Amino acid sequence: MATIAPSRRVRRTPFSDGVEAAGVKGYTVYNRMLLPTVFRSIVEDYHHLKSAVQVWDVACERQVELRGPDAARLMQMLTPRDLRGMLPGQCFYLPIVDETGGMLNDPVGLMLADDRWWISIADSDLLLWVKGLAYGYRLDVLVDEPDISPLAVQGPQAETLMARVFGDAVRAIRFFRFGWFDFNGVSMAIARSGYSKQGGYEIYVDGTQNGMPLWHALMEAGRDLDVHAGCPNLIERIEGGLLSYGNDMTRENTPHECGLGKFCSTQTAIGCVGRDALLRVAKEGPTQQIRAIAIDGDIPPCDRAWPLMAKGKRIGQVTSAAKSPDFGTNVAIGMVRMTHWDAGTAFEVHTPDGVRAATVQDKFWL
Amino acid sequence: MATIAPSRRVRRTPFSDGVEAAGVKGYTVYNRMLLPTVFRSIVEDYHHLKSAVQVWDVACERQVELRGPDAARLMQMLTPRDLRGMLPGQCFYLPIVDETGGMLNDPVGLMLADDRWWISIADSDLLLWVKGLAYGYRLDVLVDEPDISPLAVQGPQAETLMARVFGDAVRAIRFFRFGWFDFNGVSMAIARSGYSKQGGYEIYVDGTQNGMPLWHALMEAGRDLDVHAGCPNLIERIEGGLLSYGNDMTRENTPHECGLGKFCSTQTAIGCVGRDALLRVAKEGPTQQIRAIAIDGDIPPCDRAWPLMAKGKRIGQVTSAAKSPDFGTNVAIGMVRMTHWDAGTAFEVHTPDGVRAATVQDKFWL
Repeated sequence: MATIAPSRRVRRTPFSDGVEAAGVKGYTVYNRMLLPTVFRSIVEDYHHLKSAVQVWDVACERQVELRGPDAARLMQMLTPRDLRGMLPGQCFYLPIVDETGGMLNDPVGLMLADDRWWISIADSDLLLWVKGLAYGYRLDVLVDEPDISPLAVQGPQAETLMARVFGDAVRAIRFFRFGWFDFNGVSMAIARSGYSKQGGYEIYVDGTQNGMPLWHALMEAGRDLDVHAGCPNLIERIEGGLLSYGNDMTRENTPHECGLGKFCSTQTAIGCVGRDALLRVAKEGPTQQIRAIAIDGDIPPCDRAWPLMAKGKRIGQVTSAAKSPDFGTNVAIGMVRMTHWDAGTAFEVHTPDGVRAATVQDKFWL
Repeated sequence: MATIAPSRRVRRTPFSDGVEAAGVKGYTVYNRMLLPTVFRSIVEDYHHLKSAVQVWDVACERQVELRGPDAARLMQMLTPRDLRGMLPGQCFYLPIVDETGGMLNDPVGLMLADDRWWISIADSDLLLWVKGLAYGYRLDVLVDEPDISPLAVQGPQAETLMARVFGDAVRAIRFFRFGWFDFNGVSMAIARSGYSKQGGYEIYVDGTQNGMPLWHALMEAGRDLDVHAGCPNLIERIEGGLLSYGNDMTRENTPHECGLGKFCSTQTAIGCVGRDALLRVAKEGPTQQIRAIAIDGDIPPCDRAWPLMAKGKRIGQVTSAAKSPDFGTNVAIGMVRMTHWDAGTAFEVHTPDGVRAATVQDKFWL
């Protein structure tokens, strides 16, 4: 396996010193920033995530900040989700689409105030799209990337650990809500959210210089909880059906194909750039859609789309796959044509190591 | 050193099979795609590049295609370089700026026809900015990423090798011009260009399926020329003063700070989005600028900005650095305040391994 070359262009994070001291073994690059992928082994990290608590450097979830009188209008231009009912202190998962209805990102949006939002982005330079629209429409809005770096605390012991560092009030934060908490005199947004199904928080660390002090505080406070440096876990996120932009969906796909129709209110999302393009698919439904897929046998790492084949015809593709210790099969995420997307449908998946049998599941594993 | 994790999101290229068979040892990620950084060793690759010929997988230079009646207008909106004199068959190096005059990319633009262009991009999702502007201004233009993957042939033997595969007509291609050549029945643009100072070509390979056949044809035809798989070489590109977007310049910098004022005709580039913001700096000049910098002693890999200090004050930063075998010093690229940018000025550079002496050079090394 090739190593990752050092350069400033692949940005370090405020937590990179901690990540390295913890013995990171694998990295990916996400939003032109380092994102750890493995510490001990993916399987060890997986079991630990499900039983203890981990601190994740997810600074690569960069923020796009919108601020000004037209911020709310611009936010609604970005997404077919109806934002009229959203209140400060709420997080919304947001399909972001272009004028053709193609997915540009699937971030979490945070409403800070009536005229101020953060968009906590997946892996694409959404900033450039938002800036382009704001400029083209001559909107009165500032669009920028602030010095905010998310640090996630995930796992069954996350609440206990967070309460020790930020006080018992963090226990009251509801799912996909956030509040403001003090660390070393700096106020930081803390949300009940994160890219796992094990529960936990994301701390929007304000100021690069506050990164390592908070990292150390969490590690110190969680020693008896077996806290460990961690990262989004490939196996666990597939089991939980957590999609990955760039893997499981791209600009080619509509939100409805990605199973995100429930986050779209295309009729009422007035102003959304992709609204016209999505009205028909919102009404009639997509012709292919994301499915949980179980794959038999041994499989290699999934570093490219694997064709799904039935009777010699391509009927979809798998884009994320890993062997699950807890479920005794290879868990996978794929896009499947409607002719073959019903639960129980069997077909072939063509991996670089050969053909394997695969079956559509009725839902994700957890 | 950590390895790079496999995932579809970090895209393979049409040439990845060849790169792997050639024993790639290091990768970076560039435009969410794999870019090799080292094959034998950076020093061996360097000497070979300067003496023989290499084939580079630079598919990560993705193309943004503009096509339609408003394509030329949109192109001029992107850059302070005056494009009125540009003709089909020409390549232009283009500073691309936002409404504040900040650099968004530094691609090579290819004019295919009066109403059709390719922008061969550096490391940012320029597509999203261009699409945002096109939508905001309701321009009649298609903006998309075609299935075009550049393959570079670089080194003193590049012309000989290319003539064997594409015919002697490639010898007549002038610097930063391109022509159309046939490979296996497919017409491909070939430009005299590339990210080295050793001379060579970039082939805009049309169609993923044509990647490996062309790779093999070049390797086969160049066997007696000692052709080898290669990649942009860190040392050689610093010696030659080839800037790297994301390393040596970011959205924080104007073209003039990057020493790219010679590519700007801010007065006459009517329609450029950043024109207003750049008029003053174009007239008065920047207060900091890119310089060639020599650094004494041993240095670590440069994976973050290294502060330049004089009398306890920060007067700039180094963003690319490597030990040069041919020039017997560490060659570096940095941004230096005007108080310290004259050739011969000495100051300190603070690397993670300690303080080193550094001196401004009057020009780059080759």
